[in-house]
Amino acid sequence: MITSSSNSRVKQVIQWQKSARERDEAGVFPAEGFKMFEEVPEDSVREVYVSQGAYEKICSSPALKEKLNNTGCELVSDDILARMSDTRTPQGILFVAAQPRYTPEQLLDVPHPLLVVLENLQDPGNLGTIIRTGEGAGITGVIMSRQTVDLFNPKTIRATMGSVFRVPFLYTDSLKEMIARLHQRGIHTYAAHLEGKRYYESFSFCEGTAFLIGNEGNGLSRETAELAREAVKIPMEGRVESLNAAVAASLLMYEAQRQRRVERKSKNLSL
Amino acid sequence: MITSSSNSRVKQVIQWQKSARERDEAGVFPAEGFKMFEEVPEDSVREVYVSQGAYEKICSSPALKEKLNNTGCELVSDDILARMSDTRTPQGILFVAAQPRYTPEQLLDVPHPLLVVLENLQDPGNLGTIIRTGEGAGITGVIMSRQTVDLFNPKTIRATMGSVFRVPFLYTDSLKEMIARLHQRGIHTYAAHLEGKRYYESFSFCEGTAFLIGNEGNGLSRETAELAREAVKIPMEGRVESLNAAVAASLLMYEAQRQRRVERKSKNLSL
Repeated sequence: MITSSSNSRVKQVIQWQKSARERDEAGVFPAEGFKMFEEVPEDSVREVYVSQGAYEKICSSPALKEKLNNTGCELVSDDILARMSDTRTPQGILFVAAQPRYTPEQLLDVPHPLLVVLENLQDPGNLGTIIRTGEGAGITGVIMSRQTVDLFNPKTIRATMGSVFRVPFLYTDSLKEMIARLHQRGIHTYAAHLEGKRYYESFSFCEGTAFLIGNEGNGLSRETAELAREAVKIPMEGRVESLNAAVAASLLMYEAQRQRRVERKSKNLSL
Repeated sequence: MITSSSNSRVKQVIQWQKSARERDEAGVFPAEGFKMFEEVPEDSVREVYVSQGAYEKICSSPALKEKLNNTGCELVSDDILARMSDTRTPQGILFVAAQPRYTPEQLLDVPHPLLVVLENLQDPGNLGTIIRTGEGAGITGVIMSRQTVDLFNPKTIRATMGSVFRVPFLYTDSLKEMIARLHQRGIHTYAAHLEGKRYYESFSFCEGTAFLIGNEGNGLSRETAELAREAVKIPMEGRVESLNAAVAASLLMYEAQRQRRVERKSKNLSL
């Protein structure tokens, strides 16, 4: 059992919690909690740490126990796990997983892609929420500008509730080139923009669709907004000037899901 | 100019940042930043503190300058304002405002109420986001169980982006009695529930509507869900089991807004 904070593996995990650069260099990220451990694909797990105090509780779940048997785990004292943890009330299980990697083809070469393109999003919770809601809405991927917050930030990982293991994503150095590539493939691009004239539900999102979402403080940059084929407006009552980026993305993704469900249903009815 | 952290007003503001009880006893709350100061109704402002470093910048905006002239303000040194602030990078303006208070009639005695009822929501950011999105969607009020996070928590206030000054709200000791009261007034209640059978867009939310939203970890309690007239389901693809509470509320509120816009438009066309 690890009981010392000078243990090199403990020190390494703490570094991975803090440093995006070190995570990227090693191609891994730490994640925590029962739910995340349930969701992680077994072959992505590199290291597992379980606190002495939580071991019995974890093993009382047959599914978790079997998974632990397959991955192996290292026991650590409760206070060492608390130091390794990024949360205030750690659940007693922490693991290191391989970062999923995707090629552009995995995001784009699918029938009727439904993509979210994020420009410089800064809030890790918003990014995680978009990935979680996105899986629920059936998106096929998330494309992020390089200045977007790190997807493997512990706060982002937590907010994804496990969707990080299933939603394909990419960082790009040039949103401009990426958007041009989307257009070449016949994917329609829609900028969520306050100056949009048409309301979001008046468009059809049944064909290949990509929603462009800007950052929390400033929205989309003018250059990026102008690359989009259309500007969509989310109507706002009262004195509200803008919506939270994750909320705006959620409304658009779910409107696409709703339209696609209606279309599938009417196709099935006409068969 | 205040330069000492032992100043009694400075100490009081710091207490109000931390303690919901002290805020409630005084009937006030602190708020920060240019945007919030723009949004606060002038007659709600009790105290204003501006940092030496930010004074010129604030006065370069004619609207802010006029408002400051009307409310008056106290200059404080930059480091004292930083201590009073709840944020890491304070903008240099902090004020104390009277807590808005509403009667049940103000939320319920309106044409076609559109309400959100929150059971024990715990995340201050989620509550603030619901209030902000709610104003954008045109809700007429937010009703919260007593165990819901404090609306005047600094994180909640920030997340509302000023909507806190305009969206009516109530805390209630008994959701059960409140829901009965809604039913007496002919307001339809819809529980956002994983076990709902019908999708949310298949209901009409044009008449008086209240959405019941549960807390982040557990969703609605069974007792509260059973009080609702209907259970609505938000369809989820992939392996997503639930959505973030603010996202779920946003999807429902905006679906109501969409339906009400369509109805208004068709009424106007038929006139």
